[in-house]
Amino acid sequence: MSSLSGRKKSIPQLAERTSGVANPSRRQLLTTGLAVGAGAAMAGLQARPAAAAGDPAITEVQDWNRYLGDGVDARPYGTPSQYEEHVVRRNVAWLTADPVSSVNFTPLHELDGIITPNGLCFERHHAGIADVDPAKHRLMIDGLVDTPLVFTMEDLKRFPRENKVYFLECAANSGMEWRGAQLNGCQFTHGMVHCVVYTGVKLRTILEEAGVKTSGKWLLAEGADASAMSRSIPMEKALDDCMVAFKMNGEALRPEQGYPLRLVVPGWEGNMWVKWLRRLEVGDKPWHHREETSKYTDLLANGKARRFTWVMDVKSVITNPSPQAPVTHGRGPLVISGLAWSGNGTVKRVDVSIDGGRNWKTARIDGPSLDKALHRFYLDIDWDGSELLLQSRAMDEHGYVQPTKNELRLARGENSIYHNNGIQTWYVKADGVVENVEVS
Amino acid sequence: MSSLSGRKKSIPQLAERTSGVANPSRRQLLTTGLAVGAGAAMAGLQARPAAAAGDPAITEVQDWNRYLGDGVDARPYGTPSQYEEHVVRRNVAWLTADPVSSVNFTPLHELDGIITPNGLCFERHHAGIADVDPAKHRLMIDGLVDTPLVFTMEDLKRFPRENKVYFLECAANSGMEWRGAQLNGCQFTHGMVHCVVYTGVKLRTILEEAGVKTSGKWLLAEGADASAMSRSIPMEKALDDCMVAFKMNGEALRPEQGYPLRLVVPGWEGNMWVKWLRRLEVGDKPWHHREETSKYTDLLANGKARRFTWVMDVKSVITNPSPQAPVTHGRGPLVISGLAWSGNGTVKRVDVSIDGGRNWKTARIDGPSLDKALHRFYLDIDWDGSELLLQSRAMDEHGYVQPTKNELRLARGENSIYHNNGIQTWYVKADGVVENVEVS
Repeated sequence: MSSLSGRKKSIPQLAERTSGVANPSRRQLLTTGLAVGAGAAMAGLQARPAAAAGDPAITEVQDWNRYLGDGVDARPYGTPSQYEEHVVRRNVAWLTADPVSSVNFTPLHELDGIITPNGLCFERHHAGIADVDPAKHRLMIDGLVDTPLVFTMEDLKRFPRENKVYFLECAANSGMEWRGAQLNGCQFTHGMVHCVVYTGVKLRTILEEAGVKTSGKWLLAEGADASAMSRSIPMEKALDDCMVAFKMNGEALRPEQGYPLRLVVPGWEGNMWVKWLRRLEVGDKPWHHREETSKYTDLLANGKARRFTWVMDVKSVITNPSPQAPVTHGRGPLVISGLAWSGNGTVKRVDVSIDGGRNWKTARIDGPSLDKALHRFYLDIDWDGSELLLQSRAMDEHGYVQPTKNELRLARGENSIYHNNGIQTWYVKADGVVENVEVS
Repeated sequence: MSSLSGRKKSIPQLAERTSGVANPSRRQLLTTGLAVGAGAAMAGLQARPAAAAGDPAITEVQDWNRYLGDGVDARPYGTPSQYEEHVVRRNVAWLTADPVSSVNFTPLHELDGIITPNGLCFERHHAGIADVDPAKHRLMIDGLVDTPLVFTMEDLKRFPRENKVYFLECAANSGMEWRGAQLNGCQFTHGMVHCVVYTGVKLRTILEEAGVKTSGKWLLAEGADASAMSRSIPMEKALDDCMVAFKMNGEALRPEQGYPLRLVVPGWEGNMWVKWLRRLEVGDKPWHHREETSKYTDLLANGKARRFTWVMDVKSVITNPSPQAPVTHGRGPLVISGLAWSGNGTVKRVDVSIDGGRNWKTARIDGPSLDKALHRFYLDIDWDGSELLLQSRAMDEHGYVQPTKNELRLARGENSIYHNNGIQTWYVKADGVVENVEVS
């Protein structure tokens, strides 16, 4: 179909077209000094006036309109451009003993908006990706219910359903920052978060179908993978906003996200969003299973551990610029962009500092502000080319403000790997290179 | 990594677990007659009480928890489950002479919610998918402007950006229905529509950067593909809500959607959303190019043609059940689901008929109701097992109601292939098979 391989000639079409147009004086006049804020963003843009004679940037070959491309039969299920091959989830080989019980990370620095594409949602498994046949999969409800029930996938799709946008964050996200590991990029420091649209049935609906007994105060959710992942969930949360979901971003759940069925526990740590969900048991007390005792508890400095720390508190991170996404242009307009989220609801405000927390500007939140979803923020500045210490600080709808890492350490010590929602700092050098640092 | 191939034993674990629990009497009592409406949806659900002895549905092998799955290094960019291989875009070989100038269709009947995954967004090309190197791509603004400008992709990413959810519909969507082709599935009758989150820069922003002269009343948008797709856009629309977008659903545009840059013209026919956007020319009148004269005009019965029929009027379709998604269960709860959209704003209401338009019930719109975006609706009914004639009828925020196909034919004849927003009918037979029909 395609004749892409037939490209040979170098005819600078666009450059020809633009020859002899205008002069750059207006643009040059607009190269101004430092001015922080959206209104000033365009003032110093380095956009090229058309036909600046001999500008190599506009005399390069652009011959793609000389060849027919692939047709509509080429890719029944589409894939990204060949020029985007670097935009992938990445794992860290030394982090765990085996990739079947490990994590890979969302490339936050390559994304924008609030939706994570399904192919780039981070994964965390405890026994690899279960390969479940949806025709054979079942969800059972048993325990303290009037009528134990077993549902096929088709059964579940006959209940009224809903669509909700929620972030999912692993409790261990940013965990290596407690002791200052300073991994080189927001993909690794903050990439255990994603945000998609879930389609499914309210957990409340199927619990009511089985009939929860008065003594039923807790719910055990159990997965069908080889780790038989299980977590205790208080009934109040189960009856509030939890879902059993079968679709993400419109299509079926991806295998690594629990295909064909996962529990959605909005705002709470990702470990509780049991994948390959096969059983819900109603009980009168929590089960104290491995993932809520030995793991997913927060060991304090005094040797005691915080338990049932389910909510992911308000948090934010600047995704651009960041260590994997340095500034590659000179001074002038610079878009500072990032993500904020809160397990307690919406994010009300995000402030950004370019000087390590001495001064703050309120960023612009763009796109919908949805309950327990990622929020996208921007601060458009006119960069003067000097070094920056970038920080973001989010505040949720209840007024809770994201703490510094040192404030967290004072309160909880450095034993834990979970629930680090401290403020992140990126050091932007004059040459645009960015490093993960801490400011005291 | 994986030992998926090692599966051999047939141990009905879940069935063992559920043996000897409860009895089915409560559920059997709940098998009731016809009742339309969400409240009644659960009343007749056929969910299996746990451990109905000998039920084959719960004694099948479910051994996935006996084997480790793939690890986090298996798929840096994720793909759907092997059980979802049928969920793909499909083209119709006989429809056009060559796949480089053709269309494939979004599998609407397999999706839910309002977001279309990038890999499943329909494609329409006029000379195949241009393969554009973003490092070499340029966008030029010329014509009636103060300062002609050429932007690199990096230049564009230095302007303040925004994120918006918009549907994109081809003007020819449902075009074959004018003369009653009755293609066998909503993928083919209505699949030239998708809806994603776009990230980009307001077109207004870059037009203001170049400075539009007072005489500049129209804009020509031109693509870098081999068809050099070009369309005239009135300046009023260009300065209203248009965008130059570089991301969709968080990641870079897909090649078939104009990577690295496309024009977004919210609510207007897809042909105007120029892909591989390379040039914007400001002029004082429209250009009358091929795609707005010979094509993308609506030939009426009297031989005259409607021109500049840009807006995609309010429309809806039931996606489930539909010919490719028959009812595979017996009587009882049935989720009727569909999509509605309007190029004039939001959809205010969707009505659904199960008797070919004689009686209507207002459906439940679920998820956000966003300007010029897809809306998801549901009607939860208790199916009595008799034949249905399913229709949906949307009303937009201005009170404009979707017409019948015959009303459209009376007004416009049957010469056109564009702008058919007529009401679609699906005939659901007693055995659950669904056909595309018309009711007079």
